Amino acid sequence: MTRPMTMAEKILAAHAGLDEVVPGQLIECDLDGVLANDITAPIAIKTVRKIGAGVWDPDRVILVPDHYSPNKDIKSAEQTKVTRDFAREMGITHYFEQGCMGIEHALLPELGVVVPGDLIIGADSHTCTYGGIGAFSTGVGSTDAGVGMATGRAWFKVPETLRVEVEGTLPAGSSAKDLILHLIGLIGVDGALYCALEFTGSTIRDLSVEGRLTIANMAIEAGGKAGLFEVDDVCREYVSRRSTRPIVEYHPDADASYRRTVHIDAANVVPTVSWPHLPSNTHPVSESRHIGIDQAVIGSCTNGRIEDMRAAAEVLRGRIVADGVRCIVIPATQGVWLQCVHEGLMDVFVGAHCVVSTPTCGPCLGGYMGILAAGERCVSTTNRNFVGRMGDPTSEVYLASPAVAAASAVAGHIALPSDLG
Amino acid sequence: MTRPMTMAEKILAAHAGLDEVVPGQLIECDLDGVLANDITAPIAIKTVRKIGAGVWDPDRVILVPDHYSPNKDIKSAEQTKVTRDFAREMGITHYFEQGCMGIEHALLPELGVVVPGDLIIGADSHTCTYGGIGAFSTGVGSTDAGVGMATGRAWFKVPETLRVEVEGTLPAGSSAKDLILHLIGLIGVDGALYCALEFTGSTIRDLSVEGRLTIANMAIEAGGKAGLFEVDDVCREYVSRRSTRPIVEYHPDADASYRRTVHIDAANVVPTVSWPHLPSNTHPVSESRHIGIDQAVIGSCTNGRIEDMRAAAEVLRGRIVADGVRCIVIPATQGVWLQCVHEGLMDVFVGAHCVVSTPTCGPCLGGYMGILAAGERCVSTTNRNFVGRMGDPTSEVYLASPAVAAASAVAGHIALPSDLG
Repeated sequence: MTRPMTMAEKILAAHAGLDEVVPGQLIECDLDGVLANDITAPIAIKTVRKIGAGVWDPDRVILVPDHYSPNKDIKSAEQTKVTRDFAREMGITHYFEQGCMGIEHALLPELGVVVPGDLIIGADSHTCTYGGIGAFSTGVGSTDAGVGMATGRAWFKVPETLRVEVEGTLPAGSSAKDLILHLIGLIGVDGALYCALEFTGSTIRDLSVEGRLTIANMAIEAGGKAGLFEVDDVCREYVSRRSTRPIVEYHPDADASYRRTVHIDAANVVPTVSWPHLPSNTHPVSESRHIGIDQAVIGSCTNGRIEDMRAAAEVLRGRIVADGVRCIVIPATQGVWLQCVHEGLMDVFVGAHCVVSTPTCGPCLGGYMGILAAGERCVSTTNRNFVGRMGDPTSEVYLASPAVAAASAVAGHIALPSDLG
Repeated sequence: MTRPMTMAEKILAAHAGLDEVVPGQLIECDLDGVLANDITAPIAIKTVRKIGAGVWDPDRVILVPDHYSPNKDIKSAEQTKVTRDFAREMGITHYFEQGCMGIEHALLPELGVVVPGDLIIGADSHTCTYGGIGAFSTGVGSTDAGVGMATGRAWFKVPETLRVEVEGTLPAGSSAKDLILHLIGLIGVDGALYCALEFTGSTIRDLSVEGRLTIANMAIEAGGKAGLFEVDDVCREYVSRRSTRPIVEYHPDADASYRRTVHIDAANVVPTVSWPHLPSNTHPVSESRHIGIDQAVIGSCTNGRIEDMRAAAEVLRGRIVADGVRCIVIPATQGVWLQCVHEGLMDVFVGAHCVVSTPTCGPCLGGYMGILAAGERCVSTTNRNFVGRMGDPTSEVYLASPAVAAASAVAGHIALPSDLG
């Protein structure tokens, strides 16, 4: 009889070939996938070349040039070229560029490249997103990713788990984004430092997979190493339409031990905005209406899925973005982009005077496609609002849900959809 | 009785308040519009501020941030902000950004901001585009544009006119783009230096307005100061749907004197590609098939109109871009973009694994959205293939029509649509 374990412990133990693990234990695991993007892949590739034996499995190394692609400048063109040439040389199956492109963390669940039970490392901090479908995935440095690409293995210190129990029904107008911002506001940007977050409760069970991915995506913004959701019928249905890979479900034991449990009453999760310059600097939207904005960004690995596009379109339908405000809509993948065409959402966006970009991380990290000048303010559905994140160091980023970002674009200041006439 | 005059001479004389002008004469003219973009406007604005009396007419100053917008970086964000703030301060009617945006030279005819008979200067070399609808328009330096914005006037040296007479039917697969490339190949990049080009003949009369704008757009690539098309029913119909401004038609006198007349038999205008590094380095597509490509760009002020999108889509329908080739489609304006949605072209493009960008000049000038790495080759519907134009100095740009660019994207090398299986 092994000790009772949390989801994170069970996934890590299984991939280490161990019956049990305990928090703090150093283990070596077999990986199901290793990810890098156009910024991190060139560094990881150098490590692979130094090791000298190529990649461990061309079906398990995943390369997605999404940060500065379509190429912003000569430097990014060279970075993508290094990545592309390596993918060709190694026969990488999962190389996604341009026509097959998308923001990595939206793309991999959408295409079924990652499935429940997987252990994934990625040279990108938001790799934790796949916890939304019950995979343990986490961001690592580019060199660690390179070692993973070469060997299929990585070491981990088993994290403690922080349980987040959310019960009840979210208020009208609140979404998964509001819930994760609310949580980060409660526990702080180091509230889950080196912990796995495990989400549970009736509110969580009622969330769509898209909503779960949004929450898991921001686990790192509370310092979390992963953000895990149990596999249920909603998840199984989502995954079964996308992958034929066998699914392994890891459910926490009822008597597993947690570092602590945070209880949230969903009724308290009002539409929330994180003011500069930390995701934990949360305020109700209703107390943020005095903040005028210059730009809204709707997209990213946090909120660029079809559900997010629909939420934004619902607010923008029949309305027009305020004079002087730029509203940039970025469906996260080519698939979501095309679905926006088919569902008539593009008419809504362009009719509302938004611009619709090809999928890219672009503005989220201050890359391109909507960089801020000095003193400008942006409400954004992305995940970070650090100093200078989207441009000039004196610019400001306010994090919010797609509905709030859309409403703010129309109002010209931070606003609720219900504020609009 | 005045001397017989060409179209260019008549437009200039009328705007100088003179009965007649002769080539070489220095004249001062009243302008109908002054244009600048995000690169040139900040310099023009400095000149306006130095003069100190604001703009001469807020309805006649046209500002279009299109080159690095949506903002590529902090510098371009600041340039756009200078332009935007100035537009707001001066109450500029025709400030087009983001939701109302488009590539300036596609946007202004489409929205009816420029009409036949206008005299327009713009701080962008492809301002000559509006000759396609019978306006005399030409590129000037940013300081000259600033003086024009402040005073509504500009000086000109009356150009000689070079008459281009094209008779007959273009071969199947040839378009207006092939015709202008063919002409530049014939006369060279200085073949019309400081001349107005005047296009005439049965082939010209059969062209759509879109085709005429494509040809006028590239007048500057032969050194031309303008490229003029007579107003006819096709043009009148196009303009009447877009503007209520009065139209003045200037037709050349039958006995006007020209520097020379170039005769082209349309039957000789085969699908053409300009090899690096000059637009005049033209070769038949049929002799260019050995040239492999890394990227195709379909768009720009030359070929980003709906007719161009349709031509590309016709080739791409049911096909997929070659492995390893990026194909970037950029409808030139929000209007064209939305029309692509409505006509089902977006399905074709994304289905063919193209990416579709928001309107921008981006890659054409090496700005962003598809910059080339060292040694990469791009077939492009844009207008210039100078050294390093789209990225690294060792990269290469091949100019072609939308149909040829699309066929090349599918083939992986320069190709005709009829080459595809």
